[in-house]
Amino acid sequence: MTRPAQGPRSRTGRRSGDSGSKVAILEAARVRFAEHGYDGATIRAIAATAGVDPALVHHFYGSKERLFAAAMELPVIPSEAITAALESREPGSSLGTHMVRSALALWESAGMRGSFQAMLRSALTSEQAATTLRDFMAEAILGPLASVAEGTNPDRTSFRASLVATQMLGLAVGRYVLGFGPVAEASPDELAAAIGPVIDRYLTADISEAASAHYHPHGGPDSW
Amino acid sequence: MTRPAQGPRSRTGRRSGDSGSKVAILEAARVRFAEHGYDGATIRAIAATAGVDPALVHHFYGSKERLFAAAMELPVIPSEAITAALESREPGSSLGTHMVRSALALWESAGMRGSFQAMLRSALTSEQAATTLRDFMAEAILGPLASVAEGTNPDRTSFRASLVATQMLGLAVGRYVLGFGPVAEASPDELAAAIGPVIDRYLTADISEAASAHYHPHGGPDSW
Repeated sequence: MTRPAQGPRSRTGRRSGDSGSKVAILEAARVRFAEHGYDGATIRAIAATAGVDPALVHHFYGSKERLFAAAMELPVIPSEAITAALESREPGSSLGTHMVRSALALWESAGMRGSFQAMLRSALTSEQAATTLRDFMAEAILGPLASVAEGTNPDRTSFRASLVATQMLGLAVGRYVLGFGPVAEASPDELAAAIGPVIDRYLTADISEAASAHYHPHGGPDSW
Repeated sequence: MTRPAQGPRSRTGRRSGDSGSKVAILEAARVRFAEHGYDGATIRAIAATAGVDPALVHHFYGSKERLFAAAMELPVIPSEAITAALESREPGSSLGTHMVRSALALWESAGMRGSFQAMLRSALTSEQAATTLRDFMAEAILGPLASVAEGTNPDRTSFRASLVATQMLGLAVGRYVLGFGPVAEASPDELAAAIGPVIDRYLTADISEAASAHYHPHGGPDSW
């Protein structure tokens, strides 16, 4: 398997090599991810489709997550953004509030809304795209969330992580896609104050049916 | 404006009249809602497009919400389902837990998943469809939720209602569209226990920034 001297878009006049290979790799990645899903597409197969050595794919992108993020034109690498957000938290402050504020800052950065809508749209249009997005989110988002959950309450870690994901996903769709008035207009600080404690609950509280049976209508610790 | 003796699909051999008019009204409604949105499409204009008297539209459908639900082939009338769910709650039990359980029962009934996906897909594909869905949800879902919120904590009612909507929307997308493993596999009772208290928080607790500043990492009433 040899790396072609010139990539497929080398006729633009610029010196190609790396950029031509990158274009070929990203095109091959889009095809492979679309056909085989996130888990099913291997770096080896993507390299073969692109006509390059797998080592070159690793050299350029380092991991399947980074390659996927580049192919889908995501403005950030999700797991790295989550890790960075968690590391920037002040000790003693609410993890959930910090997480909501960080997510909003990220989503409101350039380019995020478009790629989020594009991914959600393709997930709704094809079963395969939904599977790809789910597998990618499981690795890149639920994985890091689950390790946070392990550090807080080790019971039912992955259920906790996916509960967090439902609230964050609903916030993103409600604020950016459907535009529910008050949620679309609220400041990041207002949303962080309202939703942060919910994220803390999912990560730390007793979320069992037994706990909810002790519900007290007017609050108090037993209602959590 | 006269009602046609036969609707556009009357050549099937069945006696037409009502059923022909209904077909014409639903087709006109789909066109008008798509072109003018939920708020912009009037019963009068839909009747004109269908070539029937507005009184006939009222006779068949009663309200714009019911007409929209019929045109979009929704299996239920959202505001009626919410009201019925609230009325069936046992006194003293958690409103949120009951609401989550009722929503899951509804969503898991026949036909709901398909129409939910279809609505979300069109909202992602066109700005106009997103506006239509948002306006419809504002009237049929956020409205009833807001009156619940008024009965619980009268502060910032519509913000509370839309926070509830983000969590319920995220639950629906995570469980039925993307299929986050643990959330897709959990029983309705497990989900109601985990998420119900969150809905109670959104409807009843102090959700201000001042309240969240009193956060205690290990729970307790002040964290809410």
